[in-house]
Amino acid sequence: MRKPRRARTASFRQTATNDESGDLSSPLANSPGFLLRLAQLRTFDEFYRSFAGLGVTPAGFSVLALIAANPGVRPGTIGEELRMKPSNVAALVNMLAAAGYVQRKTDASEMRASLLHITEAGAEAWREMEQIHRETDARLMEHLTSTEREWFVALLRKFLRR
Amino acid sequence: MRKPRRARTASFRQTATNDESGDLSSPLANSPGFLLRLAQLRTFDEFYRSFAGLGVTPAGFSVLALIAANPGVRPGTIGEELRMKPSNVAALVNMLAAAGYVQRKTDASEMRASLLHITEAGAEAWREMEQIHRETDARLMEHLTSTEREWFVALLRKFLRR
Repeated sequence: MRKPRRARTASFRQTATNDESGDLSSPLANSPGFLLRLAQLRTFDEFYRSFAGLGVTPAGFSVLALIAANPGVRPGTIGEELRMKPSNVAALVNMLAAAGYVQRKTDASEMRASLLHITEAGAEAWREMEQIHRETDARLMEHLTSTEREWFVALLRKFLRR
Repeated sequence: MRKPRRARTASFRQTATNDESGDLSSPLANSPGFLLRLAQLRTFDEFYRSFAGLGVTPAGFSVLALIAANPGVRPGTIGEELRMKPSNVAALVNMLAAAGYVQRKTDASEMRASLLHITEAGAEAWREMEQIHRETDARLMEHLTSTEREWFVALLRKFLRR
């Protein structure tokens, strides 16, 4: 039988309790860094399960999202937003271009810069992915009430200073 | 000049705003999965900066933490707690044993099982790492008020059902 949930809206407390897996004492049970790592593992598991067969990684998906929403965006801007190295952005753009989702156009004012645009096929793929991503996020948050979800997102943004 | 913080305790709202980096429109700006990925990147950056020279990875640190707090713990229990594959736990235990921090003892009741114990050198290293880890966590949370920190940890635990 599942134990009753320990964390409740009215009585959030940071205590050095053991986790629910039994008698194990976990010194990191309330460490934000440790909990963020586990949360990320759960997020990746859900993402890969949902996106299996769509041929895109979480990183590729977030790059496509920015190109879809910002026609003509530069790779450097994407790297800053997503905290990715230029070489990683370039590899992901290559992959998206090879899939026919993204086109590079040269900036007339600066010959070396490439501006990124989504193709029609890319826009269609993006709509499908966005829907699946929304469902994945909803499943990730299913243990939280709607107020807690708002707080969780707001606190993550404040944690990240965004 | 920095913009004023958008997220305030009294007015947390989940809106499809752009991020603060300028005119970039970010469709994932309020996606918990996306924000958790960025939060994890920030956490790893801080961790690696703090632990540089201590010769331990985040995963190795969390394994040592469990062995320190649970004398005689089994590798399988560690894997369940940390969501690691048995082969990864074994590799990390080998690394910690090679460093002289951990000893394997055979369970008398079950010859094949190994029980893990921390050595004196391991306990000493653990105390130093734990202090550095606390400081890292504190630095990670520096943008949040103390109430927000409690909420953040409580929500992460609820997200993870722990």
